[in-house]
This record gives sequence, C-alpha cells and structure tokens, in this order.
Amino acid sequence: MSTPSHTTTIRVRYGETDRMNTIYNARVLEWYEVARTEHLRELGMSYADIEERGIYFPVIEAKVSFSGPATYDDRLQMESRMSRPSRLRVRFDIDISHKNDGAPVANGYSVHGVADADGRPARPPKWLNEILEKGTSG
Amino acid sequence: MSTPSHTTTIRVRYGETDRMNTIYNARVLEWYEVARTEHLRELGMSYADIEERGIYFPVIEAKVSFSGPATYDDRLQMESRMSRPSRLRVRFDIDISHKNDGAPVANGYSVHGVADADGRPARPPKWLNEILEKGTSG
Amino acid sequence: MSTPSHTTTIRVRYGETDRMNTIYNARVLEWYEVARTEHLRELGMSYADIEERGIYFPVIEAKVSFSGPATYDDRLQMESRMSRPSRLRVRFDIDISHKNDGAPVANGYSVHGVADADGRPARPPKWLNEILEKGTSG
Amino acid sequence: MSTPSHTTTIRVRYGETDRMNTIYNARVLEWYEVARTEHLRELGMSYADIEERGIYFPVIEAKVSFSGPATYDDRLQMESRMSRPSRLRVRFDIDISHKNDGAPVANGYSVHGVADADGRPARPPKWLNEILEKGTSG
Repeated sequence: MSTPSHTTTIRVRYGETDRMNTIYNARVLEWYEVARTEHLRELGMSYADIEERGIYFPVIEAKVSFSGPATYDDRLQMESRMSRPSRLRVRFDIDISHKNDGAPVANGYSVHGVADADGRPARPPKWLNEILEKGTSG
Repeated sequence: MSTPSHTTTIRVRYGETDRMNTIYNARVLEWYEVARTEHLRELGMSYADIEERGIYFPVIEAKVSFSGPATYDDRLQMESRMSRPSRLRVRFDIDISHKNDGAPVANGYSVHGVADADGRPARPPKWLNEILEKGTSG
Repeated sequence: MSTPSHTTTIRVRYGETDRMNTIYNARVLEWYEVARTEHLRELGMSYADIEERGIYFPVIEAKVSFSGPATYDDRLQMESRMSRPSRLRVRFDIDISHKNDGAPVANGYSVHGVADADGRPARPPKWLNEILEKGTSG
Repeated sequence: MSTPSHTTTIRVRYGETDRMNTIYNARVLEWYEVARTEHLRELGMSYADIEERGIYFPVIEAKVSFSGPATYDDRLQMESRMSRPSRLRVRFDIDISHKNDGAPVANGYSVHGVADADGRPARPPKWLNEILEKGTSG
C-alpha cells in the first residue's frame, strides 16, 4: 500500500527567473502552494472551499533543496504526497522535475497547522478528516 | 505654489531582477505601493491606520513607462506627487531614478478609489480629506 | 478582417492575493507576460526561441485598469490582441475576465521595443516580421 | 568568542501579505536574500561586487519555520549569522522578529554553493575566504 501522489504541471514565468538565468529560489514556495491547491482539489474539495468552511492551513515550516537548473518557459512537474504527522498537522512532500526528461529541479516539503479564521489551532472536523484520509492512504 | 513631493529610497532585490539582468517590470508597481505607503506616513497617518479606520484605496488604474536600465543592488529613489482627480479619487504620480546620478528608470502613476471594507465607494470622511489636503496643496 | 486574438487561462494563486482579499495589482503585469508568452507560442515561435535568436522585447510601457474583483482560485481568461505601432514596437492589448461568467477583471496593454542582447534597438529580422505579421493581420 | 551577527530591518509591503492577512510564506525567502545582501555588504564587499568578480552563491537549500504573525507595515528585524559547513558552502541562519517588541516571526537558514558564472562549483579565491572569515569568526 503506497501513498497516492498527485502531479501538477507548471510553466516557468519570465518573472520567476533572476539575473542568474535560473528560477528565483523563493518562487518554489509559491509553486508548492499551487501543487497543494491542485492536490486538494483532486481529493474532492478545493482549499478555497475548505477556507469557506472556516478552516485554514497556515504554513508552519517549509524546506526546499535545489538539485538542478530550470529557467523561463521550462515545463516542470510537481509530484506531491500528503501525510499527517499528527492530528493537527498536514504535510506535503513535493518533488519538482523537468516534464520532458525528468531531470530533477528541487525537492522539499511544507508542514501546515489546522486553524480557524483567527489563526487559532482548530480540531479538524469530520469532513476534513475524511478528505485528508483519502489523500494519505494507499 | 507647487505641489509638495515625497521621496522614498529603495534598493533593488535580487529576486526583482529577471534573466535580462534588469528589473522585472511588474515589480515597479510593487515599489509604487512602497512609495505611496511612505508618502502617506509623512502626511501624518499611515495607510495601515487608514485601513484600520475602515477606508481603503483600491487601485483603479496604474501605468508605468520605462526609461532606463536598473539591476540588482541599485539604489533607486521614487519621487511621488499626490493629486485628487475628483472627490472619490486619489492619484500618485511617481518618478523613479538612480539615487547616485539621477539617471531615469521609470515614471508613471496609480489612481485609487476611496472604498469601505466591502469594496464599495465611500464618501471620504473629514479626517481623510484633511490628510489628503496636506498632500496636494503647496 | 478583424485582428485575431489569443486566449490564455490562468488560476489565481494564493500568493497573488493580498489582505484586501483581492488580486494584488502588480501581479496583473506578471499575468500579461504569461499571456504574451502563450500568444507568441501559438504564432509558431516561443518567446524563449526568439531570445535564443538574439532578439528581446523589453517592456517600454504598461497600463492596467481594474474593473472588477477576483480572488484566490478564480479561473481567469486573458484575451490578447497584438499590433505594431511602428516597425520597432510590438503592442499587446489584454482583457482579463472571469472564465465562468465573463465578468470583467482588468484591461490594459504593454508596449515593447525590439532589442538585441545588449538592450540596443534592433531592426526586426525577416523571420520575426513574418511571425508578427501572422499575429496582427486577420 | 561568539559568532558576529548582522541585523537588517525591513517593513512589510502590502503585496507581501495574502488574504489570510499575514505575510505570504514565500516572501520570507526573498527577505532572507535582503538580509544576506546587507550582511555581506557590512563585511566589506557587496554580493554585487562578488558576482562581478565571477563568483556566485546559488541557493542549495533553504528552510523557514514560522513562529508568529506579521502583516502589512510591520517593522521586522532579521538577525543573521554566517557559517561555513565546508570550504565549498556558505550558510546563513536568520531569525526574524518584530522590531518594536521582539516577538518572533520566523527562523530558518539558507545554504549556498560557491560557483562560477556557468554554475559549476568554484574553489573560493583568497579574497573571498578573507571576507567570509571576517563573517564567521568572533
């Protein structure tokens, strides 16, 4: 029983490069958010809907390791895996590679809390546990 | 009686360049927001305070013309002038140039509405008119 | 004979909103660049390829007018039209609206020079004129 | 003998917030780059000068942990410490806190390679070792 993964594809924008002619490091965290958004949507409820129900996933920790170059107009694929380090945490491990040849670009993760609209820790409601269960079991 | 102007200085961040080794065009609008923030602060009330009192300045229109190169670590100065095209509009004209030699980088403007927390047009309260009056008369 | 237009669809990223819960104004210029990239690709040569042949389209002027709200996860479509104000200029007029109901979000344009790798004005080569011709005639 | 630290102060820009009314997580990596830029400048050579001499510090790994809220217009201070995990690596550990009351916002680090203009690992020249020595010894 392996953990299911989700793949999201993006194309590097011009403004996401810097004068080294590579992707600017901070942008990878923005792409991670795109990967999480599409991963959750595939599980049956968009993160926008989750927020509308009053639950938020603030980032608690994020890490990225860079493994190879990428620049403007490259097609990159992000493969994400979801896990739950604890009842009050959701974690996404995300690998980024070139879509055409699989060459690695970056890998890392983000860990999120489960919070209410005021940023206070919130006990995950039943509907949320069901969605996250779908994302973490093979 | 000339209109008073305000000068804000910034330093170009690495992530604000692109692979042409110049500033990425969209970032100029972000700098404009920095210039407006400091200009309003100098008039005696920060924009954060204005929002706390329930008044917002959504951008209605923005324009930038690029006149010369700039890159990472350059010191740029933004000279802004405020005007009121109508009772419900605030406008900032902003020139950006190199701090060391005055060489031009960009010029343009942003026009803002006056709105309440729901984004609806709001009649500017007395305290707001007083602040804006300070910014627009010589 | 109408000018052909190109449509590019994007989804608003979380990091593209601000605390007003709307799209942050500077991001629209980044989306414009995405629209230009896809528009040129459809004409048969990517902008990445154009740069590899030594031709650059630096932004000379950009303008955006905001006409309606948009926020995280909204699907937006950008309809772009290309024109040539002169031999040494390329212009893109771009309308942004909601994909689901067509409600307007923003409209504006960007004007570009034709330059070599050193940023100097360059006479457009034959292959470039042919591509741009395809984009501007109905 | 403690490691010397450098403090850089920034003010949160409007575009650095998101619709949760907090700082957008990816922006912290951009601030880290601002902290590194000012830290190196204080040691006697700007990173722009280092690049002009043909040496680059590509990001190999970056991590951020979030510890408290921050929003638009907040003054934040970044305290950075430099270290050298190996001859070919430079590391910056950076704590971010509110300037007015010291309340923590985020902490983390970035690890950098030493590379030439083509991105290949480069043996640090003598002048670089001298600068980095200043930054890492108490």
